[in-house]
Amino acid sequence: MSIAYLNGAFLPLDQARISPLDRGFLFADGIYEVAAVIYGKLVDSASHLTRLRRSAAALGIAVPLPDDAIEAVQKRLIADNGLNEGLVYLQLTRGADTSRDFLPGPALQPTLFLFTQDKPFLDTPAVRTGIAVATMPDLRWARRDIKSTGLLAQAMAKQAARDAGAQEAWMVEDGFVTEGASSTAFIVAQEGIVTRPYSNAVLAGCTGAALTALAQEMGLAVVRRPFTVAEALAAQEAFITSASTLCQSVVRIDGQPIGDGTPGPVAMRLRALYIAFARATSV
Amino acid sequence: MSIAYLNGAFLPLDQARISPLDRGFLFADGIYEVAAVIYGKLVDSASHLTRLRRSAAALGIAVPLPDDAIEAVQKRLIADNGLNEGLVYLQLTRGADTSRDFLPGPALQPTLFLFTQDKPFLDTPAVRTGIAVATMPDLRWARRDIKSTGLLAQAMAKQAARDAGAQEAWMVEDGFVTEGASSTAFIVAQEGIVTRPYSNAVLAGCTGAALTALAQEMGLAVVRRPFTVAEALAAQEAFITSASTLCQSVVRIDGQPIGDGTPGPVAMRLRALYIAFARATSV
Repeated sequence: MSIAYLNGAFLPLDQARISPLDRGFLFADGIYEVAAVIYGKLVDSASHLTRLRRSAAALGIAVPLPDDAIEAVQKRLIADNGLNEGLVYLQLTRGADTSRDFLPGPALQPTLFLFTQDKPFLDTPAVRTGIAVATMPDLRWARRDIKSTGLLAQAMAKQAARDAGAQEAWMVEDGFVTEGASSTAFIVAQEGIVTRPYSNAVLAGCTGAALTALAQEMGLAVVRRPFTVAEALAAQEAFITSASTLCQSVVRIDGQPIGDGTPGPVAMRLRALYIAFARATSV
Repeated sequence: MSIAYLNGAFLPLDQARISPLDRGFLFADGIYEVAAVIYGKLVDSASHLTRLRRSAAALGIAVPLPDDAIEAVQKRLIADNGLNEGLVYLQLTRGADTSRDFLPGPALQPTLFLFTQDKPFLDTPAVRTGIAVATMPDLRWARRDIKSTGLLAQAMAKQAARDAGAQEAWMVEDGFVTEGASSTAFIVAQEGIVTRPYSNAVLAGCTGAALTALAQEMGLAVVRRPFTVAEALAAQEAFITSASTLCQSVVRIDGQPIGDGTPGPVAMRLRALYIAFARATSV
């Protein structure tokens, strides 16, 4: 059984227990981060820890450990679980109260929970074939810049995407794609690679940020503007970024092929660049 | 220590434990209900159980017990905890998975959790003085008709209301009041009592539904239309309904008095009618 971390203790994941009075359970009053692990090391860790602190600050939740201590927990979980390729999940909530009130009681102890997932993603069928996405209305709340555990709309979108034969949902608001249910959305157009600007409407993707920096270094223009579904359908290529997919070609949107319906050269090149970056900077 | 119910067992609330892999904790993939208890009996129970099933059906979560068995659990908790006046909280989630994926694993066992709160509300200072509300942008998702535990926006709104010296937040969207952070919003105008129509934009309030039926029986017109903050400020009276306040006068909105700044006769009469109804129909 996999080893997890919960509030200072390392223990088998299937023995980890929290109170149902945890505000993460009662109110989704918590945040999370997912970091990739390749070759047994943490990818882009500083970026994820910075975003964790930003989300926590937005909610006024104290992060109970300094960054190096969190990384030490992550590294021990990677080691204890013999994780070579996969994910480290981290969730931080405001903690368990003694009863239930929208206003939290004083001096709650935040709940910090981490575990790993063995999930190869460097060489998968999806990388070679590309994935399909389905578009749907973006039902989420207005503070998507906070990486909160209030993920019901995303879970519903993923389910609807699967029912439509797709592997990811692209959410659409006011005619424009915001982002994927658990990824950042990109298209490749004449002007360069196009992705939504940072705002409250989207999560600032860690993988997307690193990848766009790499794209610019290789001379590719990165255009931050909203794009429509029609633009995506007419794009040369489309792709997503996330910790759990890195950079993944999208070859069909709502059943229609993008480009020639196979992974395009820009996404494949960016993926290779990202993996080289991830490997070189992993800790 | 208060006795709670968790997945078939009655146990001290402070000993109740769930897995952090519960989808209620990881994704807010769950729903809840709060029912009032007065004179040791459940108020408007059928209405809450009907809404529970509606929320569960919207998410495709199976309710693990028939209505009479849920009521039996609620009644035993009331009895075991000697509850005379207060609330019974019920939460149902899709259950604990073996790992984390937006798409739930097959055949999860739903998690059902109930506990009681001793909370007198028949005779409180707030009933006599009225409460203040603060208005703020409605940041919530688009499916507010589902009573999901994704309550972070509401918790933030309640916190902001408290910071503004108010006891409830009224959420405003496109210039119109949607509802309170944990209540239904009403104003009393020349045309009758005005409240938002049922839609995905608001939760269908159980207490509000019973109260509007009582209002109509006493010859008061109930007008279901959106109203603005300006209309509320100019109203004769304002009030909220919820299981935890029943019917509560609002005497200040954003610091400005409503009517003469004291609880108005319509809200007070409706409150008395609702309490009589609640007492007569409690089980």
